[in-house]
Amino acid sequence: MDRRLLLKTGLVLATARSASSCLAADTAHVDPADPPWQHQTGGPFTTYGTPSKFEKYVIRNVGGNRRPAGEGVSWTPLQDLAGIITPSGLHFERHHDGVPDIDPALHRLVIEGLVRQPLEFSVESLLRYPMRTRYLVIECGGNSNAGWHQEPIQRPVGDFHGLVSCSEWTGVPLSILLDEAGVDPKAAWVIAEGADAGLLNVSLPLSKLADDAMIGLYQNGERLRPENGYPLRLIVPGWEGITHVKWLRRLQLTDRPAMTRNETATYTELQPSGKARMFTFVMDAKSLITSPSPGQKMYGPNVYEISGLAWSGRGKIAKVDVSADGGKSWAEADLQDPVLPQCFTRFRLPWSWDGNPAILKSRASDETGYVQPERDVLVGERGREGYFHYNAIVSWAIDEDGEITHVYA
Amino acid sequence: MDRRLLLKTGLVLATARSASSCLAADTAHVDPADPPWQHQTGGPFTTYGTPSKFEKYVIRNVGGNRRPAGEGVSWTPLQDLAGIITPSGLHFERHHDGVPDIDPALHRLVIEGLVRQPLEFSVESLLRYPMRTRYLVIECGGNSNAGWHQEPIQRPVGDFHGLVSCSEWTGVPLSILLDEAGVDPKAAWVIAEGADAGLLNVSLPLSKLADDAMIGLYQNGERLRPENGYPLRLIVPGWEGITHVKWLRRLQLTDRPAMTRNETATYTELQPSGKARMFTFVMDAKSLITSPSPGQKMYGPNVYEISGLAWSGRGKIAKVDVSADGGKSWAEADLQDPVLPQCFTRFRLPWSWDGNPAILKSRASDETGYVQPERDVLVGERGREGYFHYNAIVSWAIDEDGEITHVYA
Repeated sequence: MDRRLLLKTGLVLATARSASSCLAADTAHVDPADPPWQHQTGGPFTTYGTPSKFEKYVIRNVGGNRRPAGEGVSWTPLQDLAGIITPSGLHFERHHDGVPDIDPALHRLVIEGLVRQPLEFSVESLLRYPMRTRYLVIECGGNSNAGWHQEPIQRPVGDFHGLVSCSEWTGVPLSILLDEAGVDPKAAWVIAEGADAGLLNVSLPLSKLADDAMIGLYQNGERLRPENGYPLRLIVPGWEGITHVKWLRRLQLTDRPAMTRNETATYTELQPSGKARMFTFVMDAKSLITSPSPGQKMYGPNVYEISGLAWSGRGKIAKVDVSADGGKSWAEADLQDPVLPQCFTRFRLPWSWDGNPAILKSRASDETGYVQPERDVLVGERGREGYFHYNAIVSWAIDEDGEITHVYA
Repeated sequence: MDRRLLLKTGLVLATARSASSCLAADTAHVDPADPPWQHQTGGPFTTYGTPSKFEKYVIRNVGGNRRPAGEGVSWTPLQDLAGIITPSGLHFERHHDGVPDIDPALHRLVIEGLVRQPLEFSVESLLRYPMRTRYLVIECGGNSNAGWHQEPIQRPVGDFHGLVSCSEWTGVPLSILLDEAGVDPKAAWVIAEGADAGLLNVSLPLSKLADDAMIGLYQNGERLRPENGYPLRLIVPGWEGITHVKWLRRLQLTDRPAMTRNETATYTELQPSGKARMFTFVMDAKSLITSPSPGQKMYGPNVYEISGLAWSGRGKIAKVDVSADGGKSWAEADLQDPVLPQCFTRFRLPWSWDGNPAILKSRASDETGYVQPERDVLVGERGREGYFHYNAIVSWAIDEDGEITHVYA
């Protein structure tokens, strides 16, 4: 604690020297040299606001590989964001057949299969149900998959790890609708299907859906965006992105999984042991330092605030340790309140950089005791053929010039 | 508790009858009768998303009285939103001279007056400081002022009470910058000035600013929007909106308030006692039922979820009571976690409407013991000349046809 307080004071003094300058006391309030916006009435009121034109570089980058049309990803620019909420306009995308332009008056959700009474719901009827609000991460199971590459990829952190976003989701607990349909005791799985052109579907254990899944209707206060599933998205707290079926139109209760293309041809991984990983739904604990990070610059020896994000599909983040010497020593970061389960947790720690080469790492632990693994441990367990669920500790190297690169260390 | 559980079950069953219909088991997955979006690849990826075109009515309404140019308000459509986060594009506006289009590279924040060393900060230098994140309401001191009118105004709830919004704010604790400038013991007030054409300013007690004020740099994860103060806004938790000076350019420490136009010609109110209210900074506890609310329709006798927002400038909401009989009896609503100080708290309560006339009210209590007053009590204390800080209990009357109107009851 003493060390951290000392560092915070150091940051203040050091920054004051470099960033501040004396002014004549009580400067004149309006001066011809003042910028133009102080001399003329500003722009008009707007019915729906947009970011400043000076922030136009803060966008989601769209992945290059889009064959067939509508297939691909776009990345949340995590390095440009603060707090834990991802603005809806910057929530990552993973589409298989583009973004359907759904008229909510024509959209229906059907619950059928092993139920007492198949049901059909209009969007309007769902809006009348009791709602719940949760702050939840959605992370693509393939996020950070460049971590399996032989050489560390060099990109801004969002273009590598940015298939993860966090929103306030409000919707109807699915358990209410399942109770209404009446679940047959033989039912054990649910096939959830979206209304995109490919009718993308996944098989999910009924026990999880009846526990804490929601029919998401609102994201960050307003109705969810088309690319995030408007008008309905299945929300499955803590589970990989593909389970959060967008444009949800059908829940079919069955006694076994459907073994669809998405759970056999992909999302199934052979391991060194010869066994395959399937239905690896839960996203393990993970963390990233977003500042400083590759593409940003250090501005000389000084005290910095290391800031980043941690999350776990298993519950709350218990602690985040940060190392500046490649993992030889660790210090516990401050966690920003409120710390919520299956939600981004912002961590911060002051760090005095003396100008010498350094390697920054962050390591998340969740409330179940799970600790984010080092990369060599993860690769040893899962082999070089891995693609999904890469959650190893990430390392940034800082050289004498303040350049920041991604390294395996 | 028993009563509430019973009501929840009732809602499910009742809605099932009206909103659901039987389907043939296992319908065909693709059908020529299916909507067009299931037959063709959807729209493209976008670098910054926008709401569905079917939600284009969810906007902030711009107040009609805008003379001189750039003067006025726009309202958050509270009746269309869920959860507690207000999307940044829908955060209410109150401008005196329009929205300046500020180049952050040219913007400076000056701290001067009764300090050891006047300081000037670029935006870039502020971004290097330690940050903090808070979830905070900003409410205009004039919000809900139609409540003082002789007759209850008939408008959607947002167009009457919507000069209040809630965001995730991330910024630099002002105490750090004040420490760096070195506060003179004679300093007791701070004059905060914005960079709009009128250089709007307010006088604020130093004790509050040194306690928990922040220089806001991020709103809901991204840099704040031009109409919310880009690139810098003074954040003063729990205090009236005008104290959250947008486009902040100057903090002058003094030994007395400036007695500017905004704190004398307006924001000062004569009371029945002959005394005037001035510097009434703290926003008292308040609540609103957003659903059902005027402009919405009831759809016949059924069980409804009453949902609304409560907040207090003094701290956390302790409880919200809801009445359906004009205040004769009250039931305690569920508060959605997390309940945070000076932040919106979403409350919900199931209610069985039998089709007879009813009057809905909500009453917030905060952790200091303060209880939101009935309207006649507030008007009795403050008189008919009131304009600011209207926080009385709001009443919605429901008639036999399910029409919802604003009443004084």
